Amino acid sequence: MNEFQLIDKIKSILKNDLIGDDTAPIKIGDKTLLLTNDILLEGRHFLNYFPQEFLGWKAISVNVSDIVASGGKPKYALVSLLLPKNKITLVEPISRQIKKACQYYDCQVVGGNITGSEKLGLDVFMIGETKKFIGRRQAKPGDNVYLTGPIGDSRAGLKLLTMKKKPYESFEKILIEKHLKPVINLNHAKYLSQNATSSIDVSDGLSSDIYHLANSSQKKIIINSEKIPLSRELKLFCKKYRFNPIDFALKGGEDYQVLLTQNGKSQKTNDKLILIGKVYKGSGVFLDKNKLKDKSFDHFSPS
Amino acid sequence: MNEFQLIDKIKSILKNDLIGDDTAPIKIGDKTLLLTNDILLEGRHFLNYFPQEFLGWKAISVNVSDIVASGGKPKYALVSLLLPKNKITLVEPISRQIKKACQYYDCQVVGGNITGSEKLGLDVFMIGETKKFIGRRQAKPGDNVYLTGPIGDSRAGLKLLTMKKKPYESFEKILIEKHLKPVINLNHAKYLSQNATSSIDVSDGLSSDIYHLANSSQKKIIINSEKIPLSRELKLFCKKYRFNPIDFALKGGEDYQVLLTQNGKSQKTNDKLILIGKVYKGSGVFLDKNKLKDKSFDHFSPS
Repeated sequence: MNEFQLIDKIKSILKNDLIGDDTAPIKIGDKTLLLTNDILLEGRHFLNYFPQEFLGWKAISVNVSDIVASGGKPKYALVSLLLPKNKITLVEPISRQIKKACQYYDCQVVGGNITGSEKLGLDVFMIGETKKFIGRRQAKPGDNVYLTGPIGDSRAGLKLLTMKKKPYESFEKILIEKHLKPVINLNHAKYLSQNATSSIDVSDGLSSDIYHLANSSQKKIIINSEKIPLSRELKLFCKKYRFNPIDFALKGGEDYQVLLTQNGKSQKTNDKLILIGKVYKGSGVFLDKNKLKDKSFDHFSPS
Repeated sequence: MNEFQLIDKIKSILKNDLIGDDTAPIKIGDKTLLLTNDILLEGRHFLNYFPQEFLGWKAISVNVSDIVASGGKPKYALVSLLLPKNKITLVEPISRQIKKACQYYDCQVVGGNITGSEKLGLDVFMIGETKKFIGRRQAKPGDNVYLTGPIGDSRAGLKLLTMKKKPYESFEKILIEKHLKPVINLNHAKYLSQNATSSIDVSDGLSSDIYHLANSSQKKIIINSEKIPLSRELKLFCKKYRFNPIDFALKGGEDYQVLLTQNGKSQKTNDKLILIGKVYKGSGVFLDKNKLKDKSFDHFSPS
């Protein structure tokens, strides 16, 4: 069983329909709160020799990404720190990065927990607030499918980090920073809650996340491979190391762009959105004319 | 640095006054929500050979305990599951226990996360609701200090588990169950929010938690060793294995009783509360005439 089959299993036991989106929307009085949780764990999401000065930033950002993709703004966080004895000196820099991230995203850490552990981990729980929750389940036939920016960069950055080369070229440094220090655009939240029919953050890789959207909405999606946005840096990287950039875009995770659907007849679009496909009646996801392989991003599996 | 010194360090960096109680009280509209987080991690909070059928129950309960000790009722939870590959079959029983616990405590799991990990872990984030938040900081001179029930049982149960003996006597089984499957009394919440000046759940051990209360309130507490409630089972255990029951009561953690203070002139008390001491101007905690050693519970350190 993979992660998503396990989640389905748990969902069937807990029988709670709120499970299964980027965030769980909870009504408190006249407010809609968004609850989410994401972890960074050594050995799974980062390796011991990676630079760790942005871990605190990234742990907050990956949770902010889920809140924003649901149309909300981050408000409060709890941080559960798994701390090996020989990494106690990391507590101060990690706390400072968490503080910087919270200042940048305008949210606050109000509590948490520290536990001794063999592996370093930052498990963050976040609460956001929205005027209108956007989930994965309401894509409609005729909707356009958009991405908010290029994808694949983070995976390329990860690949570069595991190459352990020195020095890195400047475009390589940009890709590495995309991986280590993702920056979430809070402005997407308002646009999404006013315009999107469905949305998801691209955290596991487009080829996995677009299936979550299609399956949750019980619709078919066709995407045009030529329209998938690729950065100049990713193209340089793939040329230099002879990789296929589309592979990185499809299977690469952690770009934290938003994949969204919007009524195809809607007049309002944001200039920066990139139209990559369309929603139809039916099921499955197609890349051009072929069924897309549902392949989620596994950090350290052979690519 | 120990856990609490690390928390102080983080608090000084994040500069958020909401950090440092059992829960963080958050105003949303006219509601006060209580946020908390607690983890059960293999190797730290339980060992591989312990029976694991109550892990899901316990992970929910330890969080409910923090909510109740703050005067609230549990509402929503997110569960972050750290899952070793060879323990995938535990997902179903753990989910079923979580469901049972949520039914018992009248709360619901609305989301979470699964991550591959070398060690099994359940990191739970919980949201509760209260009419009046009770923290650790408002104990007043003249207040009585109460416990809601006997302490030390859970630590004795843990000791018995690590003895790996078979069969266990019936009083031993009771102590083991106290450790593996703590049951939180939701009724304490209302009493606390109506009557307590301060409170904390006894999760790290009385000798540690009472210092949290005294230090946070900037008061002195004197407790009477003869008044510390000890169960019949703990006494039998200590007699059989030649331990000092007061040691287990002071240093044993995970009993999840509530330690509370209440105005000494208040007429209203609950019959089941056990008066163990009194609050004074000053600082420090005294057991009878001697300063109490601030010793927090470390699961697998030599006792």
